[in-house]
Amino acid sequence: MNERDALRALTADLPHAGDDAAVVDDTVITTDMLHERTDFPPGTTRYTAGWRVVGASLSDVAAMGAAATAAVAVYADAAFDEGDLDRFVAGAIDVCEAVDAEYVGGDLDTHDEFTTASTAIGDVTDAGVVTRSGARPGDALCVTGEWGRSAAALRLFKRGDDEAVERANDLFRFTPRVADGLALADRATAMMDSSDGLARSLHQLAEASGVGFELDPDRVPVHPAVDAVADDPAERFELAAHFGEDFELVCTLPDDAVEPVSETCPGGLTRVGRVVDAADGVTADGDPLPDRGYTHG
Amino acid sequence: MNERDALRALTADLPHAGDDAAVVDDTVITTDMLHERTDFPPGTTRYTAGWRVVGASLSDVAAMGAAATAAVAVYADAAFDEGDLDRFVAGAIDVCEAVDAEYVGGDLDTHDEFTTASTAIGDVTDAGVVTRSGARPGDALCVTGEWGRSAAALRLFKRGDDEAVERANDLFRFTPRVADGLALADRATAMMDSSDGLARSLHQLAEASGVGFELDPDRVPVHPAVDAVADDPAERFELAAHFGEDFELVCTLPDDAVEPVSETCPGGLTRVGRVVDAADGVTADGDPLPDRGYTHG
Repeated sequence: MNERDALRALTADLPHAGDDAAVVDDTVITTDMLHERTDFPPGTTRYTAGWRVVGASLSDVAAMGAAATAAVAVYADAAFDEGDLDRFVAGAIDVCEAVDAEYVGGDLDTHDEFTTASTAIGDVTDAGVVTRSGARPGDALCVTGEWGRSAAALRLFKRGDDEAVERANDLFRFTPRVADGLALADRATAMMDSSDGLARSLHQLAEASGVGFELDPDRVPVHPAVDAVADDPAERFELAAHFGEDFELVCTLPDDAVEPVSETCPGGLTRVGRVVDAADGVTADGDPLPDRGYTHG
Repeated sequence: MNERDALRALTADLPHAGDDAAVVDDTVITTDMLHERTDFPPGTTRYTAGWRVVGASLSDVAAMGAAATAAVAVYADAAFDEGDLDRFVAGAIDVCEAVDAEYVGGDLDTHDEFTTASTAIGDVTDAGVVTRSGARPGDALCVTGEWGRSAAALRLFKRGDDEAVERANDLFRFTPRVADGLALADRATAMMDSSDGLARSLHQLAEASGVGFELDPDRVPVHPAVDAVADDPAERFELAAHFGEDFELVCTLPDDAVEPVSETCPGGLTRVGRVVDAADGVTADGDPLPDRGYTHG
């Protein structure tokens, strides 16, 4: 069974199965695990690791349109170095502060491979939660931020010189789009975060909402770091749309809501296409957009 | 740095550092990681693993005197078998139901070693949370349930025949003492769960409260399964007091509260000693009780 089918099995019959976070009364809760072999390339600092694992959970809170309140994390490694731990906690604290949440503690585990797990909680606002299932044909398709930063970071980690690794760490420390999710919550008809990449996110939204998408690839905002590592426009789009792990928001909203809402999104909101009938599928420039992206390790 | 010092570093300067769970507004939150090599002996079913990892977090909620509301879990393994996943989720769901909480979902991760992480949340009641720091000389020292079940389970897992392994799995699926924690919340002056064993828990409570303890070892309620695997009284006490992982509650309360509160504790409440001055240390039958217990792997 692949991870995608397995995830369905894990959450089958649960309320909000398939959404970015579970909802319990007025609280959203979500959990993630990241580990060295697949998620933290050589050169990733413990500060960046703490930021990134907690950020991944905060991003799920953002995707529900909820207000992040707190996060906890588990730090597991073969040995515990006080400096490493301090740096990990500092990253966790700082990413929480960036979204007005509080890092409130965690647990340790002795483990062969450096492994981290994070859980974030948030409060549902009066606007209610935004799920993946409410997109309607005619809605605008929008994304926050700029795309491809994790793909660019990986190339820089591979380059390996000090300057590249420092820049890669910067790129890996994304800002979870909590403020944007809150700005979008009142008008967005469907929303999710992009941890699996833009293309795969669109297919997931399409399936959950029973719609199709027309993506205008030229409108996808690409992070400047991608230009420095991509050789041509095709590779540029590949890194921005298929690589994943950017933790931006993908959402749909009524056409007339795009402009007013975009003015209140600190991470920026860009219209990149529109919602169409399910029969029309998910296309980019008229061609089918492959359901291909990052498979979480 | 050993795990105990590392845990201090991880939670330094955080509110409720050193307590079983963090407190955010009226919510408690706690997280745990368990994995195959150190926590799930050969023979542990996935159903038991799901029950146990989620139960460990629910036990921390119980130790704060809070009402458990929900839990999430991460399931990480080298491959995903649908039956295994279903059994893991069933265990997670069942342990939540045992304490009137809701299992609301989780995440998957591809990982060399079977690794699980759980987070539970709970609501603070009008009684407020119970921390580790309020024990006062003269208070009664009490424990819930019966001790040594995890120690006995490990012996049975090692024996390895079908009957022993089935019994070991039963013993591994403890009931988190959420109802008992709620019954105790109003009167308990200090409380924690016993994941590190009774002896180590007493030393931790003593340090947090600035007190000492006189333990009456003969009063410690020992689980019948221990008698079947222990050769003599010394080994019996060793397994009940030093092994750990029993997830019972250790608490202090005013003398006159023991009887009325014990009537409302479904897991049973036993007076096992009393709180004394810090200068008197932690003793059992007048001898110093070693600060020795299970070191979490």
